[in-house]
Parts: sequence; structure tokens; C-alpha cells
Amino acid sequence: DDAKREREGKTIEMDPDAVAKAFVEHYYTTFDSNRAGLVSLYQEGSMLTFEGQKIQGSQNIVAKLTSLPFQQCKHNITTVDCQPSGPAGGMLVFVSGNLQLAGEQHALKFSQMFHLVSNQGNYYVFNDIFRLNYA
Amino acid sequence: DDAKREREGKTIEMDPDAVAKAFVEHYYTTFDSNRAGLVSLYQEGSMLTFEGQKIQGSQNIVAKLTSLPFQQCKHNITTVDCQPSGPAGGMLVFVSGNLQLAGEQHALKFSQMFHLVSNQGNYYVFNDIFRLNYA
Repeated sequence: DDAKREREGKTIEMDPDAVAKAFVEHYYTTFDSNRAGLVSLYQEGSMLTFEGQKIQGSQNIVAKLTSLPFQQCKHNITTVDCQPSGPAGGMLVFVSGNLQLAGEQHALKFSQMFHLVSNQGNYYVFNDIFRLNYA
Repeated sequence: DDAKREREGKTIEMDPDAVAKAFVEHYYTTFDSNRAGLVSLYQEGSMLTFEGQKIQGSQNIVAKLTSLPFQQCKHNITTVDCQPSGPAGGMLVFVSGNLQLAGEQHALKFSQMFHLVSNQGNYYVFNDIFRLNYA
């Protein structure tokens, strides 16, 4: 019933680990299937540092991500850690995993962190830092 | 002269990349030479997630770090990325590097993120997430 769904929805919304896991699954599924669709997860003040290159704003960030020199890819997640980032209700999500590119024999190991900020109950990515972990 | 030093001090204080690099150098130098001295970098609300284990409060965090099963170690930093974490003046610092333990042949690769929060002009570590990057 509606009351039950509402309770369950609120429980999911309140549990930081559940929010983090749901975000991570949504982010990388979107990245691997429809990279341009990531634009709705960022806003104008959002920042991405990709392998040391700083990019600001949702349009610029997605332009960078869609111009990466590979088409098909698959992220496999190894670990997800999260912590509240402060009294404003933000959340830090720290991910490690590997990235398999189509046609490449070996997957690339990566680490990535996100700072999710709440905007009227919906989270968006304010900070995003990505690094490959070279062997 | 004092005015010049003050200007230079303010410049260093305002440049996020310089603050991040100075923090990272101070943090790992202290870790490698006097781990118990890290206590002053955390406060009671600080959180550490160490290989998935969550620990809160400066005393508990330093108790964890000083009880790690190795004595001598040396962190070598490969990359430092930083971004402002929001309007409150916090800073996110993302580090990759390797950790050489005394007597071990191979260094361990790691990634670590810090959320530095300003308290009357002095930064302390509010969030700290550490992960080894297993090969």
C-alpha cells in the first residue's frame, strides 16, 4: 500500500549506504549505456577532475565524458565507501573498481570519488574526481 | 618584512592546490615519523573509513592508525587532486600513491580522500577514506 511504499522510500532515502550504492549503480550503468544521460546528475557548479584535468559545469563535464577515446565500456565496482560530508546533508562516495574497454585484453583499475549534494531531496554530483590506478 | 610575509601567507592560505599539497606533505610525513601526532589533525566529529571499517573521533582514529600491524613505513605520493567542497570553505583532497612497509619487497598501492574543513582559519580532517588498491 501507499503508506508502506512511503515508509520504504523514506528508509532508502535516509540510509547513506543505500543511497551511495544506488547512486553508484545508476551512475555507472548510465555511463556504460548512455554517457550523455549523465548530464542530469551534474549542475552548473559541479566540478570534475579527470586524470588531473579540471572541468566545471554539467555541459562541459558531459562533453568531456562523451569525447573520451572509446565507445563501449563496462565499469566493474570493487568497493563503495560513503560518509556524510557535513551538516548540510551531503555525502561522500568513494569507489574503486576496474574499467573494461571493448577490444582491450586488460581492464584498467580506477578510483573515483563523488560529493553528492542534496537539492530539495534530490542528490546531484557537486564534486567528481577520477584517477586511473596505473600498475 | 612583515607586510610581505603576511601577503605571502595569505596567498598560500587562499590557493587550494597549495593548501592541499602542504596538507598532504604534512599528513604523510607525520604518519611515517610519529603516527600518534596525527591526533591534532582530526576532531571529535571526524570520520575514518579504513579498508571498509568506520571509525569516529580523533582518539579512536589515531588508536586505529597506531595499531596497524607495521612499525616503519613510507608513503610515496603519485597524484594529488583537490576541489572546493562547497560554500563553507571546505576542501576535498584525493591522493594516490604507494606505501612501502619496512622489510617488504613490494610497495602497496593505495588511494585516499580527505575532506578538510576550516575551523577559524585552520583546517582539520572531517572525512578520511582509505583503500588499498589490490592488483
